[in-house]
Amino acid sequence: MTTNTRLEHDLLGGRAVPADAYWGIHTLRAVENFPISGRPVGEIPELVRALAAIKQAAALANTDLDLLPLDSRDAIIAACEEIRAGALHDQFIVDQIQGGAGTSTNMNANEVIANRALELLGHARGDYRHLHPNEHVNMSQSTNDVYPTALRLATWRGLQQLIAALAALRLAFAAKAGEFGSILKMGRTQLQEAVPMTLGQEFNAFAITIGEDEARLAEAAQLMCEINLGATAIGTGITAHPDYAERVRARLAEITTIPVVTAFDLVEATQDTGAFVQVSGVLKRVAVKLSKICNDLRLLSSGPRAGFNEINLPARQAGSSIMPGKVNPVIPEVVNQVAFEVIGNDVTISMAAEGGQLQLNAFEPVIAYSAFRSISHLIAACDTLRMNCVQGITANHDVLRETVRNSIGIVTALNPYIGYAAATEVATEAHLTGRGVYDLVLEKGLLPKDRLDAILRPENLTRPQPFVA
Amino acid sequence: MTTNTRLEHDLLGGRAVPADAYWGIHTLRAVENFPISGRPVGEIPELVRALAAIKQAAALANTDLDLLPLDSRDAIIAACEEIRAGALHDQFIVDQIQGGAGTSTNMNANEVIANRALELLGHARGDYRHLHPNEHVNMSQSTNDVYPTALRLATWRGLQQLIAALAALRLAFAAKAGEFGSILKMGRTQLQEAVPMTLGQEFNAFAITIGEDEARLAEAAQLMCEINLGATAIGTGITAHPDYAERVRARLAEITTIPVVTAFDLVEATQDTGAFVQVSGVLKRVAVKLSKICNDLRLLSSGPRAGFNEINLPARQAGSSIMPGKVNPVIPEVVNQVAFEVIGNDVTISMAAEGGQLQLNAFEPVIAYSAFRSISHLIAACDTLRMNCVQGITANHDVLRETVRNSIGIVTALNPYIGYAAATEVATEAHLTGRGVYDLVLEKGLLPKDRLDAILRPENLTRPQPFVA
Amino acid sequence: MTTNTRLEHDLLGGRAVPADAYWGIHTLRAVENFPISGRPVGEIPELVRALAAIKQAAALANTDLDLLPLDSRDAIIAACEEIRAGALHDQFIVDQIQGGAGTSTNMNANEVIANRALELLGHARGDYRHLHPNEHVNMSQSTNDVYPTALRLATWRGLQQLIAALAALRLAFAAKAGEFGSILKMGRTQLQEAVPMTLGQEFNAFAITIGEDEARLAEAAQLMCEINLGATAIGTGITAHPDYAERVRARLAEITTIPVVTAFDLVEATQDTGAFVQVSGVLKRVAVKLSKICNDLRLLSSGPRAGFNEINLPARQAGSSIMPGKVNPVIPEVVNQVAFEVIGNDVTISMAAEGGQLQLNAFEPVIAYSAFRSISHLIAACDTLRMNCVQGITANHDVLRETVRNSIGIVTALNPYIGYAAATEVATEAHLTGRGVYDLVLEKGLLPKDRLDAILRPENLTRPQPFVA
Amino acid sequence: MTTNTRLEHDLLGGRAVPADAYWGIHTLRAVENFPISGRPVGEIPELVRALAAIKQAAALANTDLDLLPLDSRDAIIAACEEIRAGALHDQFIVDQIQGGAGTSTNMNANEVIANRALELLGHARGDYRHLHPNEHVNMSQSTNDVYPTALRLATWRGLQQLIAALAALRLAFAAKAGEFGSILKMGRTQLQEAVPMTLGQEFNAFAITIGEDEARLAEAAQLMCEINLGATAIGTGITAHPDYAERVRARLAEITTIPVVTAFDLVEATQDTGAFVQVSGVLKRVAVKLSKICNDLRLLSSGPRAGFNEINLPARQAGSSIMPGKVNPVIPEVVNQVAFEVIGNDVTISMAAEGGQLQLNAFEPVIAYSAFRSISHLIAACDTLRMNCVQGITANHDVLRETVRNSIGIVTALNPYIGYAAATEVATEAHLTGRGVYDLVLEKGLLPKDRLDAILRPENLTRPQPFVA
Repeated sequence: MTTNTRLEHDLLGGRAVPADAYWGIHTLRAVENFPISGRPVGEIPELVRALAAIKQAAALANTDLDLLPLDSRDAIIAACEEIRAGALHDQFIVDQIQGGAGTSTNMNANEVIANRALELLGHARGDYRHLHPNEHVNMSQSTNDVYPTALRLATWRGLQQLIAALAALRLAFAAKAGEFGSILKMGRTQLQEAVPMTLGQEFNAFAITIGEDEARLAEAAQLMCEINLGATAIGTGITAHPDYAERVRARLAEITTIPVVTAFDLVEATQDTGAFVQVSGVLKRVAVKLSKICNDLRLLSSGPRAGFNEINLPARQAGSSIMPGKVNPVIPEVVNQVAFEVIGNDVTISMAAEGGQLQLNAFEPVIAYSAFRSISHLIAACDTLRMNCVQGITANHDVLRETVRNSIGIVTALNPYIGYAAATEVATEAHLTGRGVYDLVLEKGLLPKDRLDAILRPENLTRPQPFVA
Repeated sequence: MTTNTRLEHDLLGGRAVPADAYWGIHTLRAVENFPISGRPVGEIPELVRALAAIKQAAALANTDLDLLPLDSRDAIIAACEEIRAGALHDQFIVDQIQGGAGTSTNMNANEVIANRALELLGHARGDYRHLHPNEHVNMSQSTNDVYPTALRLATWRGLQQLIAALAALRLAFAAKAGEFGSILKMGRTQLQEAVPMTLGQEFNAFAITIGEDEARLAEAAQLMCEINLGATAIGTGITAHPDYAERVRARLAEITTIPVVTAFDLVEATQDTGAFVQVSGVLKRVAVKLSKICNDLRLLSSGPRAGFNEINLPARQAGSSIMPGKVNPVIPEVVNQVAFEVIGNDVTISMAAEGGQLQLNAFEPVIAYSAFRSISHLIAACDTLRMNCVQGITANHDVLRETVRNSIGIVTALNPYIGYAAATEVATEAHLTGRGVYDLVLEKGLLPKDRLDAILRPENLTRPQPFVA
Repeated sequence: MTTNTRLEHDLLGGRAVPADAYWGIHTLRAVENFPISGRPVGEIPELVRALAAIKQAAALANTDLDLLPLDSRDAIIAACEEIRAGALHDQFIVDQIQGGAGTSTNMNANEVIANRALELLGHARGDYRHLHPNEHVNMSQSTNDVYPTALRLATWRGLQQLIAALAALRLAFAAKAGEFGSILKMGRTQLQEAVPMTLGQEFNAFAITIGEDEARLAEAAQLMCEINLGATAIGTGITAHPDYAERVRARLAEITTIPVVTAFDLVEATQDTGAFVQVSGVLKRVAVKLSKICNDLRLLSSGPRAGFNEINLPARQAGSSIMPGKVNPVIPEVVNQVAFEVIGNDVTISMAAEGGQLQLNAFEPVIAYSAFRSISHLIAACDTLRMNCVQGITANHDVLRETVRNSIGIVTALNPYIGYAAATEVATEAHLTGRGVYDLVLEKGLLPKDRLDAILRPENLTRPQPFVA
Repeated sequence: MTTNTRLEHDLLGGRAVPADAYWGIHTLRAVENFPISGRPVGEIPELVRALAAIKQAAALANTDLDLLPLDSRDAIIAACEEIRAGALHDQFIVDQIQGGAGTSTNMNANEVIANRALELLGHARGDYRHLHPNEHVNMSQSTNDVYPTALRLATWRGLQQLIAALAALRLAFAAKAGEFGSILKMGRTQLQEAVPMTLGQEFNAFAITIGEDEARLAEAAQLMCEINLGATAIGTGITAHPDYAERVRARLAEITTIPVVTAFDLVEATQDTGAFVQVSGVLKRVAVKLSKICNDLRLLSSGPRAGFNEINLPARQAGSSIMPGKVNPVIPEVVNQVAFEVIGNDVTISMAAEGGQLQLNAFEPVIAYSAFRSISHLIAACDTLRMNCVQGITANHDVLRETVRNSIGIVTALNPYIGYAAATEVATEAHLTGRGVYDLVLEKGLLPKDRLDAILRPENLTRPQPFVA
């Protein structure tokens, strides 16, 4: 049915493209070449929007420099605005994992914008004499500056969302810390009881540690604001006007409100993927720490009877197809798994970054594929952890109280008074006989009762204190 | 609209489920708990089919042991057969990345099969009095034996497909090796010319090395045939009949034609994920070697003028949005990226395996998610590499001939005749003066011309030879 | 002091070498070029011995083929025998992490052997007119066949030692399994009590799982028996006699008693490091599983009071500089850390393997450095775990008995009798009220007492059982 | 020989210690428990010095608070000063890879300092009545604040040295960039010639990219200044005076001149290893980028005849035991390998960090072992790369000139004048015919000669330029 296709050409010859497709021959070839993951670029909305923002900024910069006719500019801008508003994402059909250093993604964008602009100008799709994907939409640009810049903008936005998700999670932990502020328990090192603390202190540490990750992510996000538009093919700016880099940067900052700056050296910026390695390294850090927190939540809630049993996670689903009544820590478990994925993605990203050669890194697509997955899965993990787990955690007051009363570790508080050697003796005897430290100290006459009571007062056990006379 | 939902119950209470859904309340809760990757289990057809095969085998084994009524059996079998034929995969809606050690996947299967069976029996969906997801579909089973067994069957099938894809790729390289058998070139070590070889030998090495990977994968696949059905919750076989394990194994072997064997110790088999670590390790090996091959193809085809320029990869798409006429090695590049992903997935799988605790590994879902992606992306990578690249490779005869004629490395062939020290002198002089080894050897009178010619005959340079008298 | 040095030459010129050094100018340059890790090759005795065995086998093969004078042969053999007996290892001073694909290690060996042989022949060290490191000791060889072959032999030996260490550890676990065979306890999935088992079953699973690793290591070790001697520079066998490959293989098998076979395709074998990736992947598997076992030991011994407290690890040292009497699971902890190192080493090895180019992998030294560390640290970890931990483990009978008596999970055993739904109700009520399953079942009249007692008999809970009528 | 040992005691009983050992029973037990790597703590001088600085600061803080007698303080300080000056490092004999969260390292330090102090006070070693390792040297401290603080100080110093080594390497590249500033060459993307640049631009990018790493390392190093002294066992400060944390911090800052700050929340700070994950992530970034640079150097110097052959690396050693005259890029190769090691170490560190539980991370020793190796090997790699490679690089002017003259890629510069479509035609024809772009453009009358010459002027090709009228 010839009416249903149009003919397009490239350096390899001609190919029929569906008449109603906004994408063209370059996209078609890429789809055929890279049938890898089944995940098209269009599934990453922030990336599609970033591409449109860049093309829009370029059109504005090019007309600022009298290089692009005004009507072309306006049509390009209108098409980009539509895409930025959410339209035509289903036309970005190239697989996320692709060869060619992102050229296919860039050409997919050039073609979709050109054809939508042609349509707006009253021309047929594919009639590139009036507006050409490469000559007009891609004017003053190269994949090698457009694609990494788009990845950076999209990553920046993703990181802001992750920081927000972490902040919400932090507040949920902090709220629990307040709720649990006066509940005494035994702290543990190396899975052995150590010395007392409050459950509030334990949950507050989760809040604090997440807050630090937010700070590190914010630092890393700043690296994403450094763009290389104007570099064109390898950073020398060939085919670009000397004022273009600054014009397009200013226009892009206006459009996106992201504080983009142009890299100091465009040759370096075009080949270097170090900033993605850094971002991924910090995402890995976040993953490591979330996983540690979830390991702790699973440990503290182990039970229901023969475990630590100190806290209860909210029941979210039946835990077993065979064991009636079993409830499992399924939410922390899924967060652990996201963490493992992110840590694996970091290795992928490191290898891809290491594989860059000379003036370009051809493996940026898999960096993007991995980084976007890390970010979006971490956001989802934070959200489900907060809503489906942390907010509903309760404490087992009786169990916690008992662990302190029963503990050998409180002997540590007596170190300054009876010495490490005597304290060791008490502890050993307590361990062997099953008796309590308190009784043994009194019995041995190591300290008078009132002084012992003062030393072991809860508020004295959970913070530094001066010598009790 | 009450008519559009049905009410289901679990230990947490009641929930409305869409009336036309085959899945039920356990699936619903899981979907709410794990909105992580957006990739439902149903996107892995082999896994869904494996689940159905297991449920079918269990129903048969249970009736063999007089535990399940025949009409229930028949309805379950019919439902399973439909699923194995491709139906209802869209009902497997739980996210692949999930907490709960696969319970949600197993319950999703139990529910879909129960409801389809109920329908076939003339009952309403959700009317579990007649056929219950847990009591009948899941009879004698636990997630902890069903889920890992399903992963193993699905992985086994995936590995067979990968082995086939590698074999096809190997043959493509072998065909090229034949085609290039008589083309002499310089071999290189450490990116420096070494000694002569044929281009056929170079391509044959690619074929050979892939063949070895096929053998390693076949070994690893055998580990996937070891199942733990009959283990139930933790390997002790609680709730299962003593003959069940062998009955269900035999039935499963019949149904799937996979040579499954029951693990020697079911307690161990239920907690251990070492076989997946092994499989992933071999997948990583395949990835490492495919990536090395693709690096070589990119190097050998570097150019078009100022590179090695020894072979030509078929042009598959325009290489640049700015550089006219540029053609890039996009197919090897995408294979490299899949390799990096697989190597990262291996770290994810290792961490998930290490995180198993006591009688179960709760992190099998992310092992599955990662392993299936590794396998399917590797298959896709092999296919595109074969069809879109290897089959169309051509040799630049002139360039290759020239590298040998011009080479310093052929001096190595003279070692046995003139000694390492004299040969070093010739090489150094050739390097400094730009002159040829052949002329220098004659000029210095180190060997008579006829003997030199004999030594340097191509067929003598590319294989071991006795001393030339 | 000129009397204390001798002058040697290479293609870069002359250098003074200490007069009493067995190594020569090539070694000297390498020491200066690679001051990286401070760990010389001589610290890996198996590698030094393997190099000597290869040089000895080559000398024999070369005389078999009438290429090497008998007196040279005898002197080389004598020197090699000394080295294999442990002498002169301090002369292998090149850093383990080195550029040059192992050339410096091979030249270090050539020089040490040549100089010791010269000495035995009555010549001065450095007087290479009589016996030359390259022309005689290295005759028919290249670094590119000698070095990988040496790595393989040394790795093979290391793997045999690791297999033995694992076997000893397995027997220690099996002995404990026997000792604990009748102690009932609750099994746990996802850190929640599941169903009963014996402590013997739990420890037996550790023994079984280690046994599987031994089998996998033995398979992987076989890959190390495939050598590429005769390949010379790139696998084409240039400068080698056609019969040399088989002669040297036979001689090497004689000398080492390792069943070495010559690779099918020497071009492939010379560039491929896939076998090391495979070995490292299996070492990673061992690490993952040892780490899981140690995690379990730490969990089961958590306490001393507010933990699982099911088993006691032997006290090995005071646990704290501040907390008197604290004893920590230090031995499992150190094994965990070795495991993390091995998993990291696997990434290093994968990257090094991926980085191979064309006819050689220049990064074999870091593969060797990492693999040897993985192997030797795993051996040490197995030994300390066995001797300083496993052999001294004791069970807390009272605690274990109590967990079963008190358990909700035993309700699972009632599934076949009262159904999943009723069992869920009992479990939920037990959880909410703190009451026991046994009492609730009787109270609700779900089963008569004698039948309930029969079902819950320990021997019925820990293995599959037929329906109790 | 009783005269050669002294008897010491701990909670496990008594043991004979060599009479002349400064270390004591806790060290002895640790040496027996952890015979793993053979690398004692004393091999990391910065760590030993940091431990001594902390003990010295604690002694000062404790006397400031009237807790420690002045003569004990003075003896401790004197012992610490000696150690900081380099003495007694051979007494730190505990294996770097150890269980126990660093307790053995801390106790090793306590014992060595106590015994040296005892000696200075005129007492016998082991006569702890006068000065006790735990009660006096470790006063107000716990391993859990001392050990991580020591790791941070030592890491901080290591990072400063690495930054200095990178800066020196950067300057070497920058010097070469200046030297090569006017040499025109073809830039390459995806190993295919792209558009022209100068060799100076290429080397300058190396300098720039290293400078960015220095900045990232400096940021990461700041995280190492955050210490948790005063936390004691778990961060609650048990046994410590309320003013101790600030006193010891101030004293430590004085002694070390490192701007240490006390962590905001000591409970969090005592369990969190996120800062080490961050540092390791940045070390990995440095490794990735150094490896990429070395890959480029190896590519650009590939040859000597049939490669890129654009630059010459200085010959450092004979490249082959069989191929006379061969010179290999051994220095970049060793740097690549260090990079692979660092990337693997990062996985080790991530796993160890993820494995932390509750109030402590027991796996800090392997974090330290890995991080210190990464840092010291990177320093060594930078130094050998600078001195033995970069400083001696020369350019092959003729080859470089020819690549530009011969290039198809320069057609890109014509895009703005003749359009992408026409330019593609020229490129394709050039490729098929082997002819030059310049001639074809003129022949086709696409541009007049003078304008073409102006566009293709070198200074116009390597930077952005306005439209040439």
